[in-house]
Amino acid sequence: MAIPLSIQWLNGQLIILDQQKLPHETEYIALNTLEDVYDAIVTLKVRGAPAIGITAAYGLAIAAQNHEAETAEAFLHFVKKDALYLASSRPTAVNLEWALNRLQESIESVRTVAAAKAQILEEAKRIQKEDEEACRAIGGYALQLLEGKSKVMTICNAGSIATAKYGTALAPFHLGKELGREFEVFACETRPVFQGARLTVWELQQSGVDVTLITDSMAAHTIGAKGIEAIIVGADRIAANGDTANKIGTLNLAILAKAYNIPFYVSAPVSTFDLLIADGKEIPIEERPATEITHIAGQPLAPNHTKVFNPAFDVTPAQYITAIITEKGIIKPDYEQNITGLLGAVSGGGAQS
Amino acid sequence: MAIPLSIQWLNGQLIILDQQKLPHETEYIALNTLEDVYDAIVTLKVRGAPAIGITAAYGLAIAAQNHEAETAEAFLHFVKKDALYLASSRPTAVNLEWALNRLQESIESVRTVAAAKAQILEEAKRIQKEDEEACRAIGGYALQLLEGKSKVMTICNAGSIATAKYGTALAPFHLGKELGREFEVFACETRPVFQGARLTVWELQQSGVDVTLITDSMAAHTIGAKGIEAIIVGADRIAANGDTANKIGTLNLAILAKAYNIPFYVSAPVSTFDLLIADGKEIPIEERPATEITHIAGQPLAPNHTKVFNPAFDVTPAQYITAIITEKGIIKPDYEQNITGLLGAVSGGGAQS
Repeated sequence: MAIPLSIQWLNGQLIILDQQKLPHETEYIALNTLEDVYDAIVTLKVRGAPAIGITAAYGLAIAAQNHEAETAEAFLHFVKKDALYLASSRPTAVNLEWALNRLQESIESVRTVAAAKAQILEEAKRIQKEDEEACRAIGGYALQLLEGKSKVMTICNAGSIATAKYGTALAPFHLGKELGREFEVFACETRPVFQGARLTVWELQQSGVDVTLITDSMAAHTIGAKGIEAIIVGADRIAANGDTANKIGTLNLAILAKAYNIPFYVSAPVSTFDLLIADGKEIPIEERPATEITHIAGQPLAPNHTKVFNPAFDVTPAQYITAIITEKGIIKPDYEQNITGLLGAVSGGGAQS
Repeated sequence: MAIPLSIQWLNGQLIILDQQKLPHETEYIALNTLEDVYDAIVTLKVRGAPAIGITAAYGLAIAAQNHEAETAEAFLHFVKKDALYLASSRPTAVNLEWALNRLQESIESVRTVAAAKAQILEEAKRIQKEDEEACRAIGGYALQLLEGKSKVMTICNAGSIATAKYGTALAPFHLGKELGREFEVFACETRPVFQGARLTVWELQQSGVDVTLITDSMAAHTIGAKGIEAIIVGADRIAANGDTANKIGTLNLAILAKAYNIPFYVSAPVSTFDLLIADGKEIPIEERPATEITHIAGQPLAPNHTKVFNPAFDVTPAQYITAIITEKGIIKPDYEQNITGLLGAVSGGGAQS
């Protein structure tokens, strides 16, 4: 039993977990070139905003080791070209660009090519380490809030494999296992893409956490029948007033939590806050292809030409959120005031989960 | 465009729609023997409590036509044997037994075999006709409640193909189409068995009703984003206090309806009431196999040996129900009083949907 890791730097090599093959095959692959990394991101072998950012950072560092440049300036030029290429692998992933920019900035004032090569790799490792520390801190704060509770529901996969380690929503379960605290987790399967069934169940099983799979439609009955004591979810983006965009289905759970009078927690690193957005109404909701709903594993389920509404996210109004758990601490209402209070000058580097 | 029918008596032959092949093939098959009918029920070619009852009634009548008996008593003996056989096809289907009993009672005082053969077939036709009339009446009352509303959400398939015609929850949409009233229906796919995606979408498309498919997880966001004005569902069993057992996922929708302040309607014939049951806590909830959730179309989705909770139904407390729509009229709170008021001496012949 061990918390699964999606990204490892082992013996000078970048090794990633091929998440496309989960849960039936646990395959780790080496990414040795810029093209390998680009391809792994495009084909969703690596997923989760922090995990994508970390992988891209290593990709940039790997490619940099092979650039033969006369001067540090020429070297930086090569790195910038590589970064543009990698950034195009997933243009909407804010973390990807953030990580690539951070690597470039880290070598801007380095004088020699050799030093820059060393520095860029160190910076990639640092990004990974910081993300793990942030997730562990989130797990610690979440464990405080979940004191005395053991039956918890979640949706999607805000997990270890979407980050450096531990995850965000799943952090208290992994960390709890390390610290000897047992949870009974109920994972919603998370239609249409089944991240709950395919990833969260697998990930928690790897850690030895007790996990039960339900369909999203079973949430209300399960809360009542199984005595669920809290719901915890991740976040894609959090507005200045606390309104939270996350995987479609999150809002259902938030409303159910209120009806059953149990706490509803959002777990996310501070980089998830977008203080330029005043409230959830300003968050655009991506709509995805109809076939995600009408077809399963390539097989048609609904009639041909079925009209479909397929929003990828929903926005949970802050009024439904009991607390937002970050690596810097727990934020409770009044959110408008307490978010800026905790974050201070933090400007929201990008969505982290 | 026509309302699809699952059972037809055409030129002296029982023709049913093979619901197992929906939505990709619309195949009608003739059931010519008792064994054909037994098999169609066991293999779920026909589904929906009223549709099963009607099919079984025709099956008993068909078999009866071929019994060569000297006396009416001997004939009744053959019919009773056949009825026992048919009843074993789906032991928990209350309508099945109810229909078979009704046919036997209808010939108990008939003097000749010839008259009994004619009578038993007429009784089967009568059961079908009465169910169609009940569903049409439900549709009429539902249209009254939905006056001025056009965007309605539903779950599962409480539809025409589960009854003689029109269905229960779907009756206002079919009847509305006949009467020139247009609806925009949002059908929840209804995990784990996808009755919404496979059956409701197909059925409403056949009638020319505007229908949009969503996953169950999208219900809350869709209510807000699309301006859903009402939710209407069927029922498997309704307790004396109005608590309603229906397909898993119904309770989620009832709680969402309250949160969004839109009406939540239950459509069901009076035979769905079980006045011997005081409230929902007494209704047993069947749990079904884990593979319904872990596998799709035979393919594994979740990891092997995943722990699953798979309740087939949930119970919506009466407090969430705006009105119960029956063929005898609309029941509003106080349910305890108004259910017995409307039903009078009705003793609850069995679940009808």
